[in-house]
Amino acid sequence: MKLQRSIPLLAVCALCLPLSQADEGMWLFNNPPLKVLKDKYKFEPSPAWLEHLRKSSVRFNNGGSGSFVSANGLVMTNHHVGADCLAKISSKEKDFVKIGFEAKGNGDEPKCVDLELNVLMTLDDVTERVTAAVKPGMDSAAAEKARRAAINNLEKESSDKTGLRSDVVTLYNGGQYHLYGYKKYTDVRLVFAPPKAIAFFGGDPDNFEYPRYDLDVCFFRVYEADKPVKIEHFLKWSEAGASEGELIFVSGHPGRTERLDTVAHLEYQRDRVNPDSLNLLRRLEVLLKGYADRSFENARRAEDDLFGVQNSRKARLGMLAGLQDPVIMDKKRAEEKALQAAVNKDPKLKAAYGDAWDQVAGSLKTLVKIREEYNLVERARAFNSDLYAIALRLVRMAEEGAKPNAERLREYSAAGMDSLKMQLFSEAPIYEDLETVKLADSLGMMVEVLGAENELVKKVLAGKSPRDRAAELIQGTKLKDVAVRKRLAEGGLEAINASTDPMIQLAKLVDPAGRRVRRTVEQQVDEPQRQAYAKIAKARFAVYGSTVYPDATFTLRLAFGEAKGYTEAGKKVPWSTTLGGTYAHAEMHGNKEPFELPKVWTERMGQVNLATPYNFVSTADIIGGNSGSPVVNRKGEVVGIIFDGNLQSLVLDYIYDDQESRAVSVHSAGIIEALRKIHQANRLVEELTGKNL
Amino acid sequence: MKLQRSIPLLAVCALCLPLSQADEGMWLFNNPPLKVLKDKYKFEPSPAWLEHLRKSSVRFNNGGSGSFVSANGLVMTNHHVGADCLAKISSKEKDFVKIGFEAKGNGDEPKCVDLELNVLMTLDDVTERVTAAVKPGMDSAAAEKARRAAINNLEKESSDKTGLRSDVVTLYNGGQYHLYGYKKYTDVRLVFAPPKAIAFFGGDPDNFEYPRYDLDVCFFRVYEADKPVKIEHFLKWSEAGASEGELIFVSGHPGRTERLDTVAHLEYQRDRVNPDSLNLLRRLEVLLKGYADRSFENARRAEDDLFGVQNSRKARLGMLAGLQDPVIMDKKRAEEKALQAAVNKDPKLKAAYGDAWDQVAGSLKTLVKIREEYNLVERARAFNSDLYAIALRLVRMAEEGAKPNAERLREYSAAGMDSLKMQLFSEAPIYEDLETVKLADSLGMMVEVLGAENELVKKVLAGKSPRDRAAELIQGTKLKDVAVRKRLAEGGLEAINASTDPMIQLAKLVDPAGRRVRRTVEQQVDEPQRQAYAKIAKARFAVYGSTVYPDATFTLRLAFGEAKGYTEAGKKVPWSTTLGGTYAHAEMHGNKEPFELPKVWTERMGQVNLATPYNFVSTADIIGGNSGSPVVNRKGEVVGIIFDGNLQSLVLDYIYDDQESRAVSVHSAGIIEALRKIHQANRLVEELTGKNL
Repeated sequence: MKLQRSIPLLAVCALCLPLSQADEGMWLFNNPPLKVLKDKYKFEPSPAWLEHLRKSSVRFNNGGSGSFVSANGLVMTNHHVGADCLAKISSKEKDFVKIGFEAKGNGDEPKCVDLELNVLMTLDDVTERVTAAVKPGMDSAAAEKARRAAINNLEKESSDKTGLRSDVVTLYNGGQYHLYGYKKYTDVRLVFAPPKAIAFFGGDPDNFEYPRYDLDVCFFRVYEADKPVKIEHFLKWSEAGASEGELIFVSGHPGRTERLDTVAHLEYQRDRVNPDSLNLLRRLEVLLKGYADRSFENARRAEDDLFGVQNSRKARLGMLAGLQDPVIMDKKRAEEKALQAAVNKDPKLKAAYGDAWDQVAGSLKTLVKIREEYNLVERARAFNSDLYAIALRLVRMAEEGAKPNAERLREYSAAGMDSLKMQLFSEAPIYEDLETVKLADSLGMMVEVLGAENELVKKVLAGKSPRDRAAELIQGTKLKDVAVRKRLAEGGLEAINASTDPMIQLAKLVDPAGRRVRRTVEQQVDEPQRQAYAKIAKARFAVYGSTVYPDATFTLRLAFGEAKGYTEAGKKVPWSTTLGGTYAHAEMHGNKEPFELPKVWTERMGQVNLATPYNFVSTADIIGGNSGSPVVNRKGEVVGIIFDGNLQSLVLDYIYDDQESRAVSVHSAGIIEALRKIHQANRLVEELTGKNL
Repeated sequence: MKLQRSIPLLAVCALCLPLSQADEGMWLFNNPPLKVLKDKYKFEPSPAWLEHLRKSSVRFNNGGSGSFVSANGLVMTNHHVGADCLAKISSKEKDFVKIGFEAKGNGDEPKCVDLELNVLMTLDDVTERVTAAVKPGMDSAAAEKARRAAINNLEKESSDKTGLRSDVVTLYNGGQYHLYGYKKYTDVRLVFAPPKAIAFFGGDPDNFEYPRYDLDVCFFRVYEADKPVKIEHFLKWSEAGASEGELIFVSGHPGRTERLDTVAHLEYQRDRVNPDSLNLLRRLEVLLKGYADRSFENARRAEDDLFGVQNSRKARLGMLAGLQDPVIMDKKRAEEKALQAAVNKDPKLKAAYGDAWDQVAGSLKTLVKIREEYNLVERARAFNSDLYAIALRLVRMAEEGAKPNAERLREYSAAGMDSLKMQLFSEAPIYEDLETVKLADSLGMMVEVLGAENELVKKVLAGKSPRDRAAELIQGTKLKDVAVRKRLAEGGLEAINASTDPMIQLAKLVDPAGRRVRRTVEQQVDEPQRQAYAKIAKARFAVYGSTVYPDATFTLRLAFGEAKGYTEAGKKVPWSTTLGGTYAHAEMHGNKEPFELPKVWTERMGQVNLATPYNFVSTADIIGGNSGSPVVNRKGEVVGIIFDGNLQSLVLDYIYDDQESRAVSVHSAGIIEALRKIHQANRLVEELTGKNL
């Protein structure tokens, strides 16, 4: 359940409904759910408890979560979050994804090529400064520009002052703006990874399913000045782990929810976004699978992409099924009607907020007309190639770098430049054959959608078929060479304009068209929506007056719940599985891939306490991006690690439910038992528990 | 390369270009390519030679070709054509697709549940009778009706008189109508099948590739009155088989080509048909793969469907790539312009045929508007379930059966009723879980495309989600029981109207909407196209005056060519592979599925003559539907059997090419060597060759 950043939705945030006493919510650390915790669980976390958990939590900028689990900078996350790094440091000869990895000592820990970890150190409410930038009477183009300038400047100011990575986060879709200061780690090294066969045991068939049997963990260590970092805040390990019915907390980075989209917006998700995303995901899945099936090396090269695509496909199917379920939509409609009725009853509320729903609907009508072009051109779905992405980034870095910071596109603002360059100059391998296959297919898709007679299409293809053009571009570009990228980046606009690299020239050709459609989206869709949703948020506050949490934004949140089973189609599903169940599950599937256990698991079965809890479910409110989040008990000890949600949890994007929806974790006792008895990773076990065998 | 009848294109036929001396053409047996054979190959087939080959050729009505290869009714086809029968007589306990099958004697040959074979006995030109039915001045609705009446009546008359299955075939899209009389065999029994692991060695990755190493053969026997049929015309076996450079013939049933579509029509294929088909195929592939991967039994149940979908997907990708290649489209444009210029130069031709191209383009504009509804509702893409297909057939059989034959929908005409009932009352297993998965997905697709607020959609879903509605329909219907179907069929309209079966009620609900959109397509698209293409055909005759072959229509055709390698990207690809190459190919892929050889192949490797030719390529002009076609030499002996085309051949749908396009066959020497030495199928080898070990 990895946050897929490659095919994101347009982010839309909104306030949440007045809450029942359910285990609902992805809470801000500076606005935690104190009341429900006290009322329902008789638990009152102290500020120190919260600060400790927050500073022990780690964001993986490739789309996941993690936590510090030792004073020496040891970080735990999921294997499927770490797989991106594993793949990038693997080769045909040495495939760490497949065989796993264990460092014998610090000197033996290989460095990830482009992994950035963030720890949230400071949170400041900057709502007033951002909001004040937008003057009354500004049209939405002017408003968008003013707001962007304020945000870019705030980040630069903070970054210069604190040295922290400084991000202004839009919460409640404009209801609030917070300035987050992150301690940034860019020297991240691999400590331990199990083989994928056990980390992702059951593969795509078992993904989003429960009961489960996965050792979905991976350990890294952060370094500074070539030494392991000494960490003040890290989580202690609980060897007993979670027990049934226990209150647990999840501290992680949920990527995106759309719980309070208007009904019109949900219909847009149902009718456009999800079906189109699914068509694209299926297309990529079939393409990558076809490529991967041709040889072992192909399979290795495409593995991480393919997992991401299959994972997203399964998630989106669940989301779409939720929106196609009249029960859910009727509930959403009833909620919207109730709020609208309350607003319309009060003339003041009506005057201030009454038009917000139509405003959202209007923005979507604009979006429908341009969304295909926007997706293909500006979001580069037509140019599915790392080398194209690099080329466009170089072109725009040169263009934006020549502008004052306030006027730059958000992702090229001064404060974010270091992180951007880290990605751009990554030594991650790029495979020409895979690049060609992906680019050819996406160029073909552009022809299908925009038409062969479209002017931009004709210019892009330059009289060639998509296959021939893709081959020509990939073979012709020199951007595989990081030194070439660095020279172009240093040379600025002049170097870009002088470049004869075919991929740079393609990016220059596409850039103006992308900017044009992006401007329309930002000014005629995003800005009106931001204003409309801010009204709806205020209306909700006015009518319900309750404490609320914002929709997820891939920033740090606190969730809570119980370790608890559920009933599915009349059948009880127990709260946890055991290590012993793993062997039975493999047996049931003939021990065939993806149910084939690593040799070391079958060989050492006799030494394992088979009754040890292995994977377990809880009612905590999580979503993609929470992968790798630590699960802690009242004492703040690690009792597990989130790695998935069950199929029923897929509607959590739109609505919370605790009947059958469950978060799925690896249990801390199961992790230690497997590391100790099967993988015999003594050094790691000792660091986690303080005890050797 | 199996003809996929489940997702056909709208059939469009056209005349072909004046031919060079290439090995081009899918020729009618009553209009064979005598001149080119004589000029290029110094070969003059006699009428008896042609009759013998024709009457030895067999059509598999599940979408393939075959031939008689013994006097005792032994029929050879591809394993992938026979797999449909194999799957239907298999069970969880005994999976003939996987383990293969060999009958020890006639009493041991199991009967296929719903396989019909046809042999073309008579061909009559009935163009005048069909054309005369359409009077001058009739609008296209009246013309369509009159033509349909004439055809239905002709078929009934012939069937009553001859007892043969009688089909009027539209050739040259209305340029000619031929009445085909088929000897029909419905008692078809399984004699021999190799395990799929060797029949489809290399699986989807190797499909449409060359070099290849597949034993893609399967043997059946036709029975009448419970005894093997004595056959006059059958093909003798050549143990030596084809040699390099030899002239060979292919007698089979190519399914569909669109070589002389107008440019507007090709653009429609490029922009609509192929992209949409691919989206659907990818959707089904991911759906079926997801289902199959959950257990071995699921994989077995979905296997034949999944193969068909993957096969079509790969074929369509090649077709679309062809149409997206400017070189091919420019060629097509130049050809069209040349013909139009010739027509426009002659006032008489211009008056008679000059408007044909615009007429085709106009019909496509109509089709674009209704094609989604037509595909979903009338072609039942929204109702992807065997049980729905059965229900609709029952409803329409009752309705159409109550009408005079002349007025019936084509597929319910009196002459075809027996074949229809054979399908309807098939005892082929229906798996409720798979039905539910497919139906839920297709209902979801209907919501996506037609919208949740569409009136028909709302009625179909009856307030439920696609998943819930699908489960309710599949669980509720009694149509799995063949006796129930028979009772409903016998009860006619009264029984249908009284039925409370939910699937029958769904079919009754959808039927009128389907008929409505079908009528529009038949009257406003098909009929104008038929008239326009008939004009273009006549124009072509007038301008070029040459002998031509019609586009493929899944009727018997004769193709020819040389056994001949080719050069790909500067590399020579030899004309044939060897049995020994199979072992090397398996080794190269780590002997892992789908490159895992059956045990018997590895065990008996030492006994095999590894230099025996195994698969080979030729320039013969083939397409999907030709699967299983016998390849014969000048003496009419079997030298191989077609089973695939290479990737370069996929454009043959639109344009012939013999540079790199090749048909791929299993070599008769390789077949016999494998049957004798590896599978030790002595009884079969003796029947084929007259010799025992």
